[in-house]
Amino acid sequence: MAIAGATGAVGQDIMQCLEQRDFPVGELRLLASARSVDRMLPFRGKDLLVQELTEQSFDGIDVALFSAGGSRSKQFAPAAVKAGAVVIDNSSAFRMDPDTPLVVPEINPEDLDKHQGIIANPNCSTIILVVPLWPLHKVNPIRRIVVSTYQAASGAGAKAMEELEQQTRDLLSGKDAHPTVFPHQIAFNLFSHNSPIVEDGYCEEEVKMVKETRKIFHDSSIRICPTTIRVPVMRAHAESVNIEFSRPMLPEEAREILASAPGVKLQDDPENNHFPMPLEASGQEDVLVGRIRKDLSDPNCLAMFICGDQLLKGAALNAVQIAEEMIKRNLFRA
Amino acid sequence: MAIAGATGAVGQDIMQCLEQRDFPVGELRLLASARSVDRMLPFRGKDLLVQELTEQSFDGIDVALFSAGGSRSKQFAPAAVKAGAVVIDNSSAFRMDPDTPLVVPEINPEDLDKHQGIIANPNCSTIILVVPLWPLHKVNPIRRIVVSTYQAASGAGAKAMEELEQQTRDLLSGKDAHPTVFPHQIAFNLFSHNSPIVEDGYCEEEVKMVKETRKIFHDSSIRICPTTIRVPVMRAHAESVNIEFSRPMLPEEAREILASAPGVKLQDDPENNHFPMPLEASGQEDVLVGRIRKDLSDPNCLAMFICGDQLLKGAALNAVQIAEEMIKRNLFRA
Repeated sequence: MAIAGATGAVGQDIMQCLEQRDFPVGELRLLASARSVDRMLPFRGKDLLVQELTEQSFDGIDVALFSAGGSRSKQFAPAAVKAGAVVIDNSSAFRMDPDTPLVVPEINPEDLDKHQGIIANPNCSTIILVVPLWPLHKVNPIRRIVVSTYQAASGAGAKAMEELEQQTRDLLSGKDAHPTVFPHQIAFNLFSHNSPIVEDGYCEEEVKMVKETRKIFHDSSIRICPTTIRVPVMRAHAESVNIEFSRPMLPEEAREILASAPGVKLQDDPENNHFPMPLEASGQEDVLVGRIRKDLSDPNCLAMFICGDQLLKGAALNAVQIAEEMIKRNLFRA
Repeated sequence: MAIAGATGAVGQDIMQCLEQRDFPVGELRLLASARSVDRMLPFRGKDLLVQELTEQSFDGIDVALFSAGGSRSKQFAPAAVKAGAVVIDNSSAFRMDPDTPLVVPEINPEDLDKHQGIIANPNCSTIILVVPLWPLHKVNPIRRIVVSTYQAASGAGAKAMEELEQQTRDLLSGKDAHPTVFPHQIAFNLFSHNSPIVEDGYCEEEVKMVKETRKIFHDSSIRICPTTIRVPVMRAHAESVNIEFSRPMLPEEAREILASAPGVKLQDDPENNHFPMPLEASGQEDVLVGRIRKDLSDPNCLAMFICGDQLLKGAALNAVQIAEEMIKRNLFRA
């Protein structure tokens, strides 16, 4: 196995997931850009040397988990496939390619069977949205989703998390904030997601949520209106979701479905005002769901609030689960 | 004039608004609970003594601005009215009372004419929502609003702002968070609004947004689905709003209407990814509006993101503007 982008926030969490889940790794090759080469990273009690990511990095590798940004995926994933590896790619490079399965194992594992060398891991905000929505959609098809996100700094990488911490320290000691990773101050502030505005006033992050949800659900008729916002939280995304179903669904029915849904944990305790929070979602594999209630403005709608670890289920964990599912389906070369 | 609750976050901002707007104050009587008595607060270059709020506090007072919590409003506002004062009350105590006007001066100033001694200032999240929505509603009646809030600590008072700051310091120096004002950690976290869940799974804050918007707009048919969330921001609230109109409205039309609407400032700059942010709304009188775009999921809907200073337009400023409007309408006793 190889990890391209091993020194990044997601790469580090991939290594942790592999350890914790006892994934049958064999040799682990850690790859990164030239400036991270020669660092040593611990894995299962040994220190592994980080090597430079090149087109020659993949000899003898059966599966390569990419998390080094879209341009590096485009540049090096074909070489990995050529060398015989299956690539599980965390970037947006191949997600909308019709030949590339876009997979959340709880939802569409069968799409893996048709892979042609590359599997795409969906965007974090998409994964966290679709995991709790899928079991509801199966029972009562979803027609429309209005979603507003509360996205953590981690989605922009380790440097963004450092910026949130350092900027907060600076402001608390009377210094000015100097944004470098984000376009605006993130400490004690929030702003529209920092991806470029591309279509009809929607930013890339929002377009991803729309297109990826449709592809994962195999349902291009679902209408989605997303608003993506960055908040000064470290590593878990939250989403306020309004769901229009084909017919009315009672909150009790949704709760019952979600209570036994894979990858979901109900956290819906009105008496103690205890609902999904980034603080409790961080480090958890499950997506937390709560505040499930009737939308009094439309009989076919439910409102809910969800929260999931952006680095785990939103990225690293889902990629490792894809690899596990491929082993189960016997999709790696011997 | 008297200010009941002068030492609180809103009371302090009321004093600042009175100074900055050259309000014709005459004598200013500062009132607070027993524990704040004998403090001195500066106003227009003089130090004023804080006196205890009692039923005898209002002799000779023409207008009393209350911002001391609902129970103190209920206890002392009737005494103020009896003494001949008009009460402008910032609490929720009288807002839904059919005899009490609930006023945003940009929207329904004529409701002031029917006052019977008490005027209610709406809840902060409501004010920030309705100021930009009203000019649109007048042109193309709004049928439904789906809104998710990003609410600052200031909404829970000065102590909550201190808690956000101190808790952030503690966490950054490796200490634990010890929430006392809020039920959960606020630093680097967010959670469902800390008001009790009262109706159909909705919390008090959300019920206020629904009922108050209908009362201010004099339109009980507007359907509203709010989700209110606290975020680690100091003093400005943000809201992600999805608006269903009676018929389609182009983003350009909404932008044109909002560009000249009172109390509103367009901040809608996709090229520079520059939209409403708490950092820039803080200290501003106007409500910032941006990210105005077609909702691709419904032809009658627009999406937008708004942001306003919770302590100013959300509370103190609106109360002072009500007093100004009453002077204009000659509604105070001579």
